[in-house]
Amino acid sequence: MVEAAVMGAGAWGTAVAKVLADAGNDVRLWARRPEVAEEINETHRNTRYLGDAELPKTIRATSDPVEALSGACTVLLAVPAQMLRSHLEQWTHLIGPDVTLVSLAKGIELGTLMRMSQVIVQVTGADPGRVAVISGPNLASEIVAEQPAATVVACTDSGRAVALQRALLTGYLRPYTNSDVIGAEIGGACKNVIALACGMAAGVGLGENTAAAIITRGLAEIMRLGIALGAKPTTLSGLAGVGDLVATCTSRHSRNRTFGERLARGGTMESALREAGGHVAEGVTSCQSVLALAASYDVEMPLTDAVHRVCHKGLSVDEAVALLLGRSTKPE
Amino acid sequence: MVEAAVMGAGAWGTAVAKVLADAGNDVRLWARRPEVAEEINETHRNTRYLGDAELPKTIRATSDPVEALSGACTVLLAVPAQMLRSHLEQWTHLIGPDVTLVSLAKGIELGTLMRMSQVIVQVTGADPGRVAVISGPNLASEIVAEQPAATVVACTDSGRAVALQRALLTGYLRPYTNSDVIGAEIGGACKNVIALACGMAAGVGLGENTAAAIITRGLAEIMRLGIALGAKPTTLSGLAGVGDLVATCTSRHSRNRTFGERLARGGTMESALREAGGHVAEGVTSCQSVLALAASYDVEMPLTDAVHRVCHKGLSVDEAVALLLGRSTKPE
Repeated sequence: MVEAAVMGAGAWGTAVAKVLADAGNDVRLWARRPEVAEEINETHRNTRYLGDAELPKTIRATSDPVEALSGACTVLLAVPAQMLRSHLEQWTHLIGPDVTLVSLAKGIELGTLMRMSQVIVQVTGADPGRVAVISGPNLASEIVAEQPAATVVACTDSGRAVALQRALLTGYLRPYTNSDVIGAEIGGACKNVIALACGMAAGVGLGENTAAAIITRGLAEIMRLGIALGAKPTTLSGLAGVGDLVATCTSRHSRNRTFGERLARGGTMESALREAGGHVAEGVTSCQSVLALAASYDVEMPLTDAVHRVCHKGLSVDEAVALLLGRSTKPE
Repeated sequence: MVEAAVMGAGAWGTAVAKVLADAGNDVRLWARRPEVAEEINETHRNTRYLGDAELPKTIRATSDPVEALSGACTVLLAVPAQMLRSHLEQWTHLIGPDVTLVSLAKGIELGTLMRMSQVIVQVTGADPGRVAVISGPNLASEIVAEQPAATVVACTDSGRAVALQRALLTGYLRPYTNSDVIGAEIGGACKNVIALACGMAAGVGLGENTAAAIITRGLAEIMRLGIALGAKPTTLSGLAGVGDLVATCTSRHSRNRTFGERLARGGTMESALREAGGHVAEGVTSCQSVLALAASYDVEMPLTDAVHRVCHKGLSVDEAVALLLGRSTKPE
């Protein structure tokens, strides 16, 4: 049994808290908003993010980071990627020296172009072997419904990877260990951008052959970036790469895919944002930092570039889809 | 312009005939049944396989192989995998000595465990450099609807690969050349089995996380087999591997996925066959030859094995799904 603090009570943080509780661990869940913590403690639900799904009664939610972090030997960070640094700066003094720090956030930090594990190391001063990443094809709504799923627990310290794997093992979630933190993070950071591209193609009426071609070309550019950064190709052809990419690109529950469809329908960022009630999809932000990171390593990412031009440079979806498909004939 | 003979007027053969005709080639299409040839010539449709889709008027269909093959410099073989040898034995004397022979069939021959290109080389005595393979995420119904798609043209002779690429280039189909014939064939031969597994999981009510995990594990075992046979990993992470696998596993138009769902609903091969009007899905056959081929190379394919046990050994779908998901915790 592990004393775990999950910091962030969005859909994914809450789902991981449920997994940890179901696996028999002592789980505290930090919610930024007191009313979310209150709802979880009183009704064992998080209706803002997970509808009517019932959570284990053993999860103790709090909006006080001191209470959440006190005594925790594993801290799982589930705040949005671009918020991780500022939150962690406030929490670092509350985290013990041998705690395992686990990133549940998927993204590349704007400006610094750091992966989440790098942000964690920089802010906390932790040895990189103390930092782990959980990533895989894990739609939160299906996890809380206890649909069978598999995920990757990546950490360069194999002892910590195995401990985390055990802490997450339940009848419905099967965690696989991997020492390749970079690969696990790059897969998760890039897939939302490709899902936006898939949504755009679907939104202008293109079919499953097109979607499969976009997913395949998306995987190719994710692999190019990952390998340039030192990731293992097998990680990117595994659950945290292909698996997460396929789930995000083909699911009708995927926010990024849906946002891409809205972009296609309305034709502009403004109309898509209106239709999404002002909620911007993660891929809209991450296409900027992923593209800048790729440029700094001289890696071409034509799909990510096309999505970036739609989201930030006024390119029309029709022009972008032509770009997604219209390269000259050449070897694969 | 190329004189091409497409031998086989099922959905895929007919779709490729349309592509070749739209690209400006002189196309003859051989149909086993005279009434299919007649319908194509008279109404420019192949309603048995492609509903109401209109075909180019320049396609000349015939049920006479002599007429189809006479003068052809490219022969595309679109008969079912297990029928290729017997047909080709009757056609070989009609095929000129420098003709490019293109496999459109996806499978491993039962008994000999040969890939289709190997069967072609053995039966015709052609140099392997004359044999090409077309494979990729290409649902025939979308191709004839001129939905944008990409495909792989694999041939060890790069001149022939480029000539075939040019012969197939249209506004809606983008062919990529590849020298890796083995990789292109293994991807196509194995994906239907994984699609059966995805269908079974969907049929018992499992969701998109499960599907993504099955696709990822399916890709891993396809890669293991391909690499053992000499395929390049990049082919299998490309259009003919990941691309075709994703399209076949996620499409509701996929016969194999649908057959897997029927297996799950009815619980037995008998009930699934009844529901499918007696039409057995290709994966039911190919799981036998793929598994035997893997065994001869000492490659483990646990998903293919589980599908094989459902289709041929009386294992229940519920037990198979448990096998698909239930491996012990270990490194990825």
